[in-house]
Amino acid sequence: MTKTNSGNFFEDFHVDMEIFHATPRTVTTGDVALYTALYGGRFAVQSADSFAQSIGYERSPVDDLLVFHIVFGKTVPDISLNAIANLGYAGMRFLQPVYPGDTLHAVSRVIGVKETSKGDSGIVYVSSRGFNQDDEPVLEYVRWVLVRKRAAASPAPEAVVPTLPAALTPEQLGDAVPFIEATEWNADLSGSPHFFEDYKVGEHIDHVDGFTIEEAEHQLATRLYQNTAKVHFNQHTEGQGRFGRRLVYGGHVISMVRSITFNGLGNAFHFAAVNGGRHVNPAFAGDTIYAWSEITDAQELAGREGTGALRVRSVGVKNRSCADFPLFAEGTSYDASVVLDLDYWVLMPRRG
Amino acid sequence: MTKTNSGNFFEDFHVDMEIFHATPRTVTTGDVALYTALYGGRFAVQSADSFAQSIGYERSPVDDLLVFHIVFGKTVPDISLNAIANLGYAGMRFLQPVYPGDTLHAVSRVIGVKETSKGDSGIVYVSSRGFNQDDEPVLEYVRWVLVRKRAAASPAPEAVVPTLPAALTPEQLGDAVPFIEATEWNADLSGSPHFFEDYKVGEHIDHVDGFTIEEAEHQLATRLYQNTAKVHFNQHTEGQGRFGRRLVYGGHVISMVRSITFNGLGNAFHFAAVNGGRHVNPAFAGDTIYAWSEITDAQELAGREGTGALRVRSVGVKNRSCADFPLFAEGTSYDASVVLDLDYWVLMPRRG
Amino acid sequence: MTKTNSGNFFEDFHVDMEIFHATPRTVTTGDVALYTALYGGRFAVQSADSFAQSIGYERSPVDDLLVFHIVFGKTVPDISLNAIANLGYAGMRFLQPVYPGDTLHAVSRVIGVKETSKGDSGIVYVSSRGFNQDDEPVLEYVRWVLVRKRAAASPAPEAVVPTLPAALTPEQLGDAVPFIEATEWNADLSGSPHFFEDYKVGEHIDHVDGFTIEEAEHQLATRLYQNTAKVHFNQHTEGQGRFGRRLVYGGHVISMVRSITFNGLGNAFHFAAVNGGRHVNPAFAGDTIYAWSEITDAQELAGREGTGALRVRSVGVKNRSCADFPLFAEGTSYDASVVLDLDYWVLMPRRG
Repeated sequence: MTKTNSGNFFEDFHVDMEIFHATPRTVTTGDVALYTALYGGRFAVQSADSFAQSIGYERSPVDDLLVFHIVFGKTVPDISLNAIANLGYAGMRFLQPVYPGDTLHAVSRVIGVKETSKGDSGIVYVSSRGFNQDDEPVLEYVRWVLVRKRAAASPAPEAVVPTLPAALTPEQLGDAVPFIEATEWNADLSGSPHFFEDYKVGEHIDHVDGFTIEEAEHQLATRLYQNTAKVHFNQHTEGQGRFGRRLVYGGHVISMVRSITFNGLGNAFHFAAVNGGRHVNPAFAGDTIYAWSEITDAQELAGREGTGALRVRSVGVKNRSCADFPLFAEGTSYDASVVLDLDYWVLMPRRG
Repeated sequence: MTKTNSGNFFEDFHVDMEIFHATPRTVTTGDVALYTALYGGRFAVQSADSFAQSIGYERSPVDDLLVFHIVFGKTVPDISLNAIANLGYAGMRFLQPVYPGDTLHAVSRVIGVKETSKGDSGIVYVSSRGFNQDDEPVLEYVRWVLVRKRAAASPAPEAVVPTLPAALTPEQLGDAVPFIEATEWNADLSGSPHFFEDYKVGEHIDHVDGFTIEEAEHQLATRLYQNTAKVHFNQHTEGQGRFGRRLVYGGHVISMVRSITFNGLGNAFHFAAVNGGRHVNPAFAGDTIYAWSEITDAQELAGREGTGALRVRSVGVKNRSCADFPLFAEGTSYDASVVLDLDYWVLMPRRG
Repeated sequence: MTKTNSGNFFEDFHVDMEIFHATPRTVTTGDVALYTALYGGRFAVQSADSFAQSIGYERSPVDDLLVFHIVFGKTVPDISLNAIANLGYAGMRFLQPVYPGDTLHAVSRVIGVKETSKGDSGIVYVSSRGFNQDDEPVLEYVRWVLVRKRAAASPAPEAVVPTLPAALTPEQLGDAVPFIEATEWNADLSGSPHFFEDYKVGEHIDHVDGFTIEEAEHQLATRLYQNTAKVHFNQHTEGQGRFGRRLVYGGHVISMVRSITFNGLGNAFHFAAVNGGRHVNPAFAGDTIYAWSEITDAQELAGREGTGALRVRSVGVKNRSCADFPLFAEGTSYDASVVLDLDYWVLMPRRG
């Protein structure tokens, strides 16, 4: 009998099982500074208390994706320590702002299980939620992940495949943002002259900038999130593994892409929701990440005169320019350079 | 006459000499965030203010080992700038909690000197103490280190070899921890179901996880501690030195091992004392660190109903699994894979 | 029509043009901790609130050079995204202390333009200023930079070459420092026994220590400063560029040199002004940076009995010892090992 946690295997999950995740985490301005050092974010709301206050926040909120990484990290020891692949996310909503000093914890519920035809693994669907110290939900999302079985001979459970959340509608976006007056928005300070009305559905943007990943950087990031997935940290084992090297945490790439999109979407001050996201190819240290985006929808928000919601598809690409908007090699098979396909909503101020 | 500090040589030390070390250092939540990013710690007390408060701390205390590294770093320019080897630690006691905002400084007293038979160096024994801004001691330890002589011809001082502290008894553990009620301990949030009573003397634990060291990581860590030992930072000189490369600060390995032991000792919330510790082989960037532990004693603590003390021997190992608990190659000669042999006390909550 | 910022080209600048830079930035103790981890600074004023308070600061001020990097970083997207070379700095004055919690923004004014004889680029002279949240200036400097033209055929503007600030006099130093009483200075805690009176004009100091640069470190630093110059981050493009590799941000080298000078100038607690500075050769990851200094002037400060001003020339050197004070190869042509030539003022306490 061992005292070490070897994680849950596919057999350990059953529908409606509720999992209280360790370890609660107080988020501080120290975490915010590291997040800036890791991704170089320049969105003004997250960078300056004064700017955040000018549009109604108490102070600069913690970056939405930092909240996601911390909540996600807590789920790893229970959900995905024996994962073969992280298959996707959907229905991710940021429900209220997180400020430095808040303490986050996470709870997940299993909403589906389905053994694969090969019989050595299965897909686990979970609904995860992050809470603050007052037990108020700050984030929720659905995730599905391919998990190893402990023993191939274990009987298959009854398959339960949940209806995955469809793309979120603007009405479903959370309240992780104050009700702003667009006239308060200082475009000199935010760094972009482009407001909600300036974006057209179908518009493509090559975000131009590229960032090269170093081993130390993605390791620092993933540890900061207390994410324990060993593929990110252990060259001794990964050197003999599938890729011969450490795999970069997919969330690290999401944050890089979000930061890269500042150049073109500089006023998209709140990352409000993810309709769906997939890591379609692995990223490694030495890769240079680029990104391009397509505006796929633009909606007014009831009761929020000052802001509009843009639905964006951002594609993360490695080691090549995005000038020609790379996506599929043929049909719907992704080009080998594409690492991320992310469908999400951002909020942007409207012209007064 | 130069204005640069070339450090003390063996001749410069004499018994009862007292050394006031520079530079005082205010510890902040920024340091705590970096410490998390460097080691990925998941002990709940150090991670979440709310958890720490639930068992009687004011808020999350600064990780015990971060306190050690900061105090130790201050002693380097005066004690070990001309060290050939850091021989050992003993009698290390954490005396009271350090919180973000506290300012630490350090004082050492020389308690022994002994020239080596070769005559070109000597062992210096020091008792070092760390204090907070109110001049209250927060940490004390004894360390002995092999230091170069300025000139081989210098006469040998009278040898004074102090009685090194024996292993500390539970009564000698400091008060760097509140008096907790075990019933307040939330094992879902702490991430481990194993309490004091669940550990048996003689029990061995393979902590399973491994972390690969990068140059940037150990340099960031060691500079964070204001540790000035040049072997950690300067490839230009070290490339021509003993190992042909930069040496990782031994304390970096201690912190990695402490973090790795979470998987198996997740409720060992306070690193209370070190009976003795040795860095038995060097570690370098590229090495993957693993660890295993043996429980060597388990003691009740007078006046502390809610906690017990476990004495643990943790062995840090590089580039191989710890499934077979590697230690000695033959006799008491360490296996080449072993980098750290640490004998210490931790506190753990008791079952209510 | 694109929404991405491709930066200003030489044609876009005209004399008296005023540029309000994005993004405002709240500086925190998290930034301070990262700065310590990046450079290992040991100046007591910046390290310990208690020491800073003992000489009249509210608490530890943010390192002067961290203030500079943050202000400078803001100017990059508008001034130097299309720069070929950063030619120099002058007239840099730190005007008042910045404390954690302060929010900085920056404004520049173009004070000169001059097309090069080749006709494909031009020199832009700007005066940049950093302000805090109360719109009080905290820093000002002049910088000149060689910027690409959008089109070689564009007509040359009328050349305006400003009178560059001469070396600053002690009277021109800013008030980013309290009026200290030298008797309050604790030399044990500051780590240096050498006061203002101990330095002689003409004195040379080899600072001895060397630090090797890693890619992850300079990338973390430069992103922390929200500096967007792509040459520092993108190996995919830089691998095919002028140097075949990423270029280290010149400011990273300045901070390394400042930190290295602690060993010899440990009481130089305030970096008060830069008379002139040039990056004379590039630095890359893998380089080991050393430094030496010459004291070029020493002045009393009117109204400041407790401090004196030392004018220092610090020379940053790579991959070789500074024991022989390397500078010029022949005439005034810099030796290939020299990376930085910096002429600046520091404040130092006087003997009581």
